[in-house]
Amino acid sequence: MTKFSKPSAGIDQKSQEATNPHSPVVDFGVDKPLHLDSGVSLSPFRIAYQSYGELNADKSNAILICHALTGDQHVANVHPVTGKNGWWETLVGPGKPIDTDRFFVLCSNVLGGCLGSTGPASINPETGKPWALDLSIITIADMVRAQAMLIDHFGIKQLFAVVGGSMGGMQVLEWASSHSDRVFAAVAIATGARHSSQNIAFHEVGRQAVMADPEWKEGRYLEEGTVPRKGLSVARMAAHITYLSETALHRKFGRNLQDRQNVTFGFDADFQIESYLRHQGMSFVDRFDPNSYLYMTRAMDYFDLAAEHQGRLADAFAGSRTRFCIVSFTSDWLFPTSESRTVAHALNAAGASVSFVEIETDRGHDAFLLDEPEMFSAINGFIRSAARARGLLQP
Amino acid sequence: MTKFSKPSAGIDQKSQEATNPHSPVVDFGVDKPLHLDSGVSLSPFRIAYQSYGELNADKSNAILICHALTGDQHVANVHPVTGKNGWWETLVGPGKPIDTDRFFVLCSNVLGGCLGSTGPASINPETGKPWALDLSIITIADMVRAQAMLIDHFGIKQLFAVVGGSMGGMQVLEWASSHSDRVFAAVAIATGARHSSQNIAFHEVGRQAVMADPEWKEGRYLEEGTVPRKGLSVARMAAHITYLSETALHRKFGRNLQDRQNVTFGFDADFQIESYLRHQGMSFVDRFDPNSYLYMTRAMDYFDLAAEHQGRLADAFAGSRTRFCIVSFTSDWLFPTSESRTVAHALNAAGASVSFVEIETDRGHDAFLLDEPEMFSAINGFIRSAARARGLLQP
Repeated sequence: MTKFSKPSAGIDQKSQEATNPHSPVVDFGVDKPLHLDSGVSLSPFRIAYQSYGELNADKSNAILICHALTGDQHVANVHPVTGKNGWWETLVGPGKPIDTDRFFVLCSNVLGGCLGSTGPASINPETGKPWALDLSIITIADMVRAQAMLIDHFGIKQLFAVVGGSMGGMQVLEWASSHSDRVFAAVAIATGARHSSQNIAFHEVGRQAVMADPEWKEGRYLEEGTVPRKGLSVARMAAHITYLSETALHRKFGRNLQDRQNVTFGFDADFQIESYLRHQGMSFVDRFDPNSYLYMTRAMDYFDLAAEHQGRLADAFAGSRTRFCIVSFTSDWLFPTSESRTVAHALNAAGASVSFVEIETDRGHDAFLLDEPEMFSAINGFIRSAARARGLLQP
Repeated sequence: MTKFSKPSAGIDQKSQEATNPHSPVVDFGVDKPLHLDSGVSLSPFRIAYQSYGELNADKSNAILICHALTGDQHVANVHPVTGKNGWWETLVGPGKPIDTDRFFVLCSNVLGGCLGSTGPASINPETGKPWALDLSIITIADMVRAQAMLIDHFGIKQLFAVVGGSMGGMQVLEWASSHSDRVFAAVAIATGARHSSQNIAFHEVGRQAVMADPEWKEGRYLEEGTVPRKGLSVARMAAHITYLSETALHRKFGRNLQDRQNVTFGFDADFQIESYLRHQGMSFVDRFDPNSYLYMTRAMDYFDLAAEHQGRLADAFAGSRTRFCIVSFTSDWLFPTSESRTVAHALNAAGASVSFVEIETDRGHDAFLLDEPEMFSAINGFIRSAARARGLLQP
């Protein structure tokens, strides 16, 4: 492992700001290249992570959390940029379903991300400039390979569990498929074994919105000192609608006006839903790198576990001894229950151990990030049962 | 009625190109102002229209077609800009369910539109420049008021029928509510009595995409000689997804690649759905005015028929003697069947005559524009029955 030397130009400064992890990092040097699906060998590269709890003596109590598209490694601590609570503090912490008094919980910023791990905002050591679109496309399998190298770094042979929702759930399925022996238990929430046509379509709208912004500068905005703020904001607005359900939107906003009395007969945000979405768009820009958004969406689009096995999803899990917990939400239209059911059927066909829970909620895809007692209870039960089987809890 | 004099500047030239109707027009002069919901009196203004068939002696055989958001008056003739067939040639023509051998069929470009009727691309006679955002916000009720003035121009006291889908269906409901005596029969397809929170959200994304484009120039692009092409294209892409169903997208495109073999590990359109959407976006720009898109979406957002009657939708149709046909499609998630059912229930509560048909199809909202035999059959039956009741067909 070698730390790569960093050029000291102003560009580097900006790039470092853009990718500042506020987290520990592991640098993988030129002796540890990462062989990407694109055929490119990436080296050096960096992975930033957060950890909670203590690794036990035989290193058998590690749980890897995989974050979603716009998430990061700050699962259960105050976010260093936004000042908000960790995104999964409801699930992860002392005495929580994923109990940090008992487990060593690890979450790394995905490869291609923008909070410390190597991504398009990082410096390309060959040019001294940010990678931008010169970075190879990253796949879900590439993210998982980088995570595997991280757990090697910790000397962890097998993860007790891998847990994630949405894009995080894709990583869970990839772990269980490609690194089956290293995963004792897997929890995949609100996800699927492939990205659907409609989901690719929404991602493409978001990418086109970013790329349409002249401030994007063909991806070289860090060097140019610009920010494709409006484009990324529009992308986030469109995506955000898909994270909610019609029912949730109707309950939360309906046709309520900002000014309770009257419409203004103009294009300002008359309706509360408009001002909410604008806020979601603008605040996202403050914490996310536009190119990273392109890479993350592309990684999800490319994910198709069955395709890697001649269209037979069951073959992706052949011989698996991993225990699976699959969770879906009734009102999730981004990853509807049918996608989870397809995964559960394939696992059954492969003879794997699987428990599948569909949770009744009207909160849409975002439910996996919210206070959903039924989800907590399902995960808690699954983790405790698996921990007993693994000898981490008394029977 | 007076024709307003046109300034002869270059701006006017561009504006005329932008709004060239390739259709007959009626100019309403300063003696015929249109009193808009915003409180503004609009005069002069122009309405462009197409007509098919012959008006009978007592002017009782007129059917008004109301077009949708991005539609226009070219219902049943080759489109002068795109060269494509009329958008409802499947439904309207000699021997068709709306039989132009029997009925006088009229369709006008809506107020605020961009194919000949006064809209934001038209010249503001006070400044000699395009209206742009200085034009008052137009509502669905305003569009209908302008249509009412058009049928006055033709000397038509009562329309035999008003027919439309989506935004056109909103106009149908508005006609039946505010001009009940002038509508013998009403056919409202794939629509609702209000725009939902989620629908407003998607519209807001589209507007923000247009307005984020620096070529939009605060709406003054016609004067500046620019076109907010990328912004409008992104808006159209996002909207287009909502017109289709997940099933239809999956059937038509799935995860099919452009190049059948491999992904390119890049941001070009790898998937067929991406290239399809990009084409939809770019071709829309050639035929639609960006500001008009803002006005049309706003008109739909503002539509809420119950709100105009203290929240009681049934009151919007109190005492109505119009016969209604309400049509919805099972896979339409923009205007789901529940919205049509709400309308049908309100009509029942108001004691109106209503037939309500939900059509099983996986083609989503766009089904109303497609070859849907069940829809044709329902409309044909309804129109024939109404025509007999009106004495236009032998019993």
